[in-house]
Amino acid sequence: GGRAWLKPGLQRALWVKNITRCKSEHLSPTLLLDRLPADFLRAVTCQVCDHLLADPVQSPCGHLFCRTCILKYGRALGPRCPACALPCPASELAPPAKAFMGILQGLVLRCPQRECGEGVRLDAYGAHCHAHGGDEDEGVGEGGGPPQGRGFDCYLPVNKGG
Amino acid sequence: GGRAWLKPGLQRALWVKNITRCKSEHLSPTLLLDRLPADFLRAVTCQVCDHLLADPVQSPCGHLFCRTCILKYGRALGPRCPACALPCPASELAPPAKAFMGILQGLVLRCPQRECGEGVRLDAYGAHCHAHGGDEDEGVGEGGGPPQGRGFDCYLPVNKGG
Ligand SMILES: [Zn+2]
Ligand SMILES: [Zn+2]
Ligand SMILES: [Zn+2]
Ligand SMILES: [Zn+2]
Ligand SMILES: [Zn+2]
Ligand SMILES: [Zn+2]
Ligand SMILES: [Zn+2]
Ligand SMILES: [Zn+2]
Repeated sequence: GGRAWLKPGLQRALWVKNITRCKSEHLSPTLLLDRLPADFLRAVTCQVCDHLLADPVQSPCGHLFCRTCILKYGRALGPRCPACALPCPASELAPPAKAFMGILQGLVLRCPQRECGEGVRLDAYGAHCHAHGGDEDEGVGEGGGPPQGRGFDCYLPVNKGG
Repeated sequence: GGRAWLKPGLQRALWVKNITRCKSEHLSPTLLLDRLPADFLRAVTCQVCDHLLADPVQSPCGHLFCRTCILKYGRALGPRCPACALPCPASELAPPAKAFMGILQGLVLRCPQRECGEGVRLDAYGAHCHAHGGDEDEGVGEGGGPPQGRGFDCYLPVNKGG
């Protein structure tokens, strides 16, 4: 069937890391302040990289990915949905519903900076981290801290939906 | 394995209908105003009855169900999660995170009453339908209209999370 080419589990995860290389740009769902239900976490994370959705786009089959992730994935592995293997050409990627974007942007993260730990909305997280200024080297984990030598705009789900 | 006893697809759906009998009390996700992404819909619907979560509880494995659905299901089929077959005793069902309950209660439904069609938040839907008064027989579909001869409180996800 159409799913046969999908690599399972760990092997796929390693592949994907090499394709997307987004670890320093995207945010880990472990930053979320609340212990949200498993299926909800799945709904707000990228089906390619498992980070919190950054500038998400939706496939015709209804799955969600960071825009850069699905484009890189499609170039490397062909235009099929990484979640369900249905056809997924770049031309048919669409913005998710505005109502969904509002929910995503309203998720509250815990600031990982030492001596802060404040709860910050996803759509304010870039500015918040920026305000911490030079404290960028405090060694938080994957996707946990501000990216090195980059702006913070990559955190924002810039796509407002439609 | 532990999943072997789970009945797939249609057969299971018919079973479950007979166990929960919640069609006239719960709301169909087709009432949602926005075309929300597939995984998000899964996150706000009951893994037993597929209606919008009503008074949801969370299993130790992180799956969500209407309280009445998982209790009826457990009594009929034993204390295993209907989504993943892990142990799911009634005593370990917990309220979902408050942040999730806020998102659920803020979902906007389209009022199915003829000549209304207004967008109404889930947590205001019962009162809204009640205000339509005697127009309760307009023949909307499954889970679409006010229940016959009942109050409207059953619509509310009364559990505020914790
Ligand atoms: Zn990523
Ligand atoms: Zn991604
Ligand atoms: Zn898909
Ligand atoms: Zn901070
Ligand atoms: Zn139901
Ligand atoms: Zn249910
Ligand atoms: Zn489960
Ligand atoms: Zn109405």
